[in-house]
Amino acid sequence: MNPTAAILLIGDEILSGRTKDSNGNHLAKRLAELGIDLLEIRVVPDDHSVIVAALNALRATHKHVFTSGGIGPTHDDITADAVAAAFGVSIDVREDARAILATNYDNPADLNEMRLRMARIPAGASLIDNPISKAPGFSLGNVHVMAGVPVIFEAMVAGLLPQLTGGAPMRSTSVRLDRPEGEVAAGLAKIAARFPALSIGSYPFVSGRGFGTNIVARGTDEAMLLAAETEILTLR
Amino acid sequence: MNPTAAILLIGDEILSGRTKDSNGNHLAKRLAELGIDLLEIRVVPDDHSVIVAALNALRATHKHVFTSGGIGPTHDDITADAVAAAFGVSIDVREDARAILATNYDNPADLNEMRLRMARIPAGASLIDNPISKAPGFSLGNVHVMAGVPVIFEAMVAGLLPQLTGGAPMRSTSVRLDRPEGEVAAGLAKIAARFPALSIGSYPFVSGRGFGTNIVARGTDEAMLLAAETEILTLR
Repeated sequence: MNPTAAILLIGDEILSGRTKDSNGNHLAKRLAELGIDLLEIRVVPDDHSVIVAALNALRATHKHVFTSGGIGPTHDDITADAVAAAFGVSIDVREDARAILATNYDNPADLNEMRLRMARIPAGASLIDNPISKAPGFSLGNVHVMAGVPVIFEAMVAGLLPQLTGGAPMRSTSVRLDRPEGEVAAGLAKIAARFPALSIGSYPFVSGRGFGTNIVARGTDEAMLLAAETEILTLR
Repeated sequence: MNPTAAILLIGDEILSGRTKDSNGNHLAKRLAELGIDLLEIRVVPDDHSVIVAALNALRATHKHVFTSGGIGPTHDDITADAVAAAFGVSIDVREDARAILATNYDNPADLNEMRLRMARIPAGASLIDNPISKAPGFSLGNVHVMAGVPVIFEAMVAGLLPQLTGGAPMRSTSVRLDRPEGEVAAGLAKIAARFPALSIGSYPFVSGRGFGTNIVARGTDEAMLLAAETEILTLR
């Protein structure tokens, strides 16, 4: 069994529709490559008690929880405090985080009181490197806290994931059928029943030529995937 | 207080990273216009018991739950059964749904056994119109079940939302500051404190010219938003 994970996206801007999240999709792809099974993505607002409740629900259920958003310098950046509250630990400016943050500013005065908020780290956490703008993320227990800005989030993910233990990477094969789902559904159900170890999904689409169906088979066994692909191709 | 809502996106393809969801963002924008406060988006896999648990958690908490995905003709389309199970009601092919579905096929034989699955409707539900490919969605209690294909999802949303009672539409104003978050954070915190009825968010970005910050104020009172905008502009 592969380790499991959930992603918690924190931010009013996603729920208002203003921002179209891309961090969830980015990390989903990286986790599949690593053999960590992503079982939930949850988006919650900038609300302390909602974030705490979501963190506690997800960290009890999954091997890893990855968060995105809410660790900047402004008044609406409340993720670090929520993580500390969820774990019942203290939070304060930490000297190593402050030192890292300071390297971002030529003039020491620029590391003002609001920016120092980004060096507030819950007790017991380890830092996650931020090669873009220095302000670190952190891991506490099985919760990995990262920035919301996509370029920073992706850089943090790139640094963090090699430190985690994955499982068997999920492989997939995709077959495009230019036939509507309803015509291939019966044959596909039989193929799916013959390959219970694979997850076989059917994704209809609408193109200029009418309705079509993408069939995606996913699993960890390459030979089994190829055998399934051969059968799916007969549905063309 | 505006009515609240959650969106439940159902599908392995989002969690594997293969599909980048757009339905959540589309509906989020429509709900904001309608004055329904979206408080959660949750993505879950094609797993009966997980879908049932999520439905029951979300429908108990929110005025409306909107689902996307899993109502097609194939073996992995299990949403309608999960909704019936969550509500503890029966599910079977319903005559009006079958009649609507039949209008999609010139040859009656094309409405085969798998396609008939799309006319299975939980007892007590009302149908949601699908002008694209006929197969209807449905509303049962406060749960609104729609297709995953974006063009169909959006058409169903367009038909459904005018039937729901909204609240005060959420308005917003956005100010772009070409200064990093850390320089405007202290001033912004004071403005946010002076307008507690507004939600004022700070969204850093990285552009060719360096770090910048978008400030977004959201609320239902237009005059208050304009007053806040005037103050935010002083941070430029």
